[in-house]
Amino acid sequence: MDSKDDKPNVSCSSRVCVHNPHLDTLKDDILYHFSLGTGTHDLPAMFGDVKFVCVGGSPWRMKSFTEYIAAELSMEDPKSEYPNICAGTDRYAMYKIGPVLSVSHGMGIPSIAIMLHELIKLLHHARCTDVTIIRIGTSGGIGLDPGTVVVTKQSVDATFLPKFEQVILGRTVVRNTDLDQSLAEELLQCSKELNQFETVIGNTMCTLDFYEGQARLDGAFCSYTEKDKQDYLSKAKDAGVCNIEMESSAFAAMCKLSGLRAAVVCVTLLDRLKGDQLSSSHELLHSYGQRPQILVGYYIQKQLKTKAAGK
Amino acid sequence: MDSKDDKPNVSCSSRVCVHNPHLDTLKDDILYHFSLGTGTHDLPAMFGDVKFVCVGGSPWRMKSFTEYIAAELSMEDPKSEYPNICAGTDRYAMYKIGPVLSVSHGMGIPSIAIMLHELIKLLHHARCTDVTIIRIGTSGGIGLDPGTVVVTKQSVDATFLPKFEQVILGRTVVRNTDLDQSLAEELLQCSKELNQFETVIGNTMCTLDFYEGQARLDGAFCSYTEKDKQDYLSKAKDAGVCNIEMESSAFAAMCKLSGLRAAVVCVTLLDRLKGDQLSSSHELLHSYGQRPQILVGYYIQKQLKTKAAGK
Repeated sequence: MDSKDDKPNVSCSSRVCVHNPHLDTLKDDILYHFSLGTGTHDLPAMFGDVKFVCVGGSPWRMKSFTEYIAAELSMEDPKSEYPNICAGTDRYAMYKIGPVLSVSHGMGIPSIAIMLHELIKLLHHARCTDVTIIRIGTSGGIGLDPGTVVVTKQSVDATFLPKFEQVILGRTVVRNTDLDQSLAEELLQCSKELNQFETVIGNTMCTLDFYEGQARLDGAFCSYTEKDKQDYLSKAKDAGVCNIEMESSAFAAMCKLSGLRAAVVCVTLLDRLKGDQLSSSHELLHSYGQRPQILVGYYIQKQLKTKAAGK
Repeated sequence: MDSKDDKPNVSCSSRVCVHNPHLDTLKDDILYHFSLGTGTHDLPAMFGDVKFVCVGGSPWRMKSFTEYIAAELSMEDPKSEYPNICAGTDRYAMYKIGPVLSVSHGMGIPSIAIMLHELIKLLHHARCTDVTIIRIGTSGGIGLDPGTVVVTKQSVDATFLPKFEQVILGRTVVRNTDLDQSLAEELLQCSKELNQFETVIGNTMCTLDFYEGQARLDGAFCSYTEKDKQDYLSKAKDAGVCNIEMESSAFAAMCKLSGLRAAVVCVTLLDRLKGDQLSSSHELLHSYGQRPQILVGYYIQKQLKTKAAGK
């Protein structure tokens, strides 16, 4: 395995950075999986005012987040319909309300990576500045009460190391998975002010698989014992892992490379030390799933108020 | 990296095999990402007659495949609505017409792996026998005219090796990506009989990323030159790679482990030696995208006719 750090040597201002000299040679840039493009859409007019991007796996959740934000910010009639900006494709869904963009990313690193490549190019083409991006998701917790919200300190891999391996031309390049620590602290402070649910800062393990990759005993295949599982999750806990999901490492690495201020906020749907199946009622899981959006909605509202007061 | 072969030592009959002794201890099995379960649904009644499963990334395509099959097989009024069996979730979409099940899997290995774990358990719980599973997808071609259909001989990784690496308890297990060669030959024969478009058998490279992972020059990040890209794709071509996509290796490995007769049929949307962007018209790309379903529809029809004639 080849391994090197490929930190960008291009200095990033408040603009969203791409690191690709070839893009300048493209006449048009087609953002295929969004069904958008520079030749067919006026991206600066559509997206130039974006300051907050929230991403999450489920298209339904990202639509509901937009409706929630609209109501919270009293920016539009909360009963109005928000069109899916990516209606020309079923790969991702995208909604916008004022300075807040909401985009789904599907499940797993490859799916979020395709979305982020095109999102970063979109924000770049739209000449957006000072953008904060937050992943709001669900996860399995380790030793936490279900419903606890985890703000990620570091995203770690299945061996508990804070790195993301990107294969380029058949060779593995290791990328840093640092997230913005001040943003994580601000989100924790927001949760204290909200005082509605428990929130912690901790490491998040990012895996390539939901079943064998997360030591579940209930997949189609399982070659290990309950004790093997408990030993592995205990080691993860000792390494500071509070929760497990499937996108944070690529998200952290790509946002860092492009100069986006980034955070990961995931609720835990169950305690993996006590089980594997998501057997809580639909209603309870749904209410847990709303917690990251309540927290991030509060944070955005606070930021906008602070900015308005400073004017 | 630890590496070992984990071939199952359980003998597989015509039933769909799970390799997980823990499943027997579960009272109910919740297939969370399908919003189905053994405690809430009569899976043998719903799925016991399934003989063909077709999977593809896009939920729209899998719905259109079901409508197409219904019309081709004259099994139901082709104008009738086919309900999404997974309507309780937005993670995957599932449709059924007679013995043909159609399921979406999103983009990338982690997304298809979650779906396949739950699909294999579903087919097992439903006591299905003699199931054939085919992935119908889109891909980038290498040195082929756009619109060419590739039936996968072997799925290879980004270093052109026929293996899939599954991380289990933090250790890497290497799995075989063999597909059913007789099924591939039967599909090629069907294409000759159809005589509507070019079909070839060749190796398919499966990557974890669409941009840097496939040597594209049009992602948000690109640290290599056009020559680096051409050199890499030429090496892939020399290794027998005809096309590149993002799910075949996990699909091949998991189907082999569970005793499913499996094939991968992907159309090429562009020739990657000539470009990276999907700039063909929407109509042309859509018509290319229908070719795998036309081929697989013909194959299923032929199989059902042969079976009926043999009765």
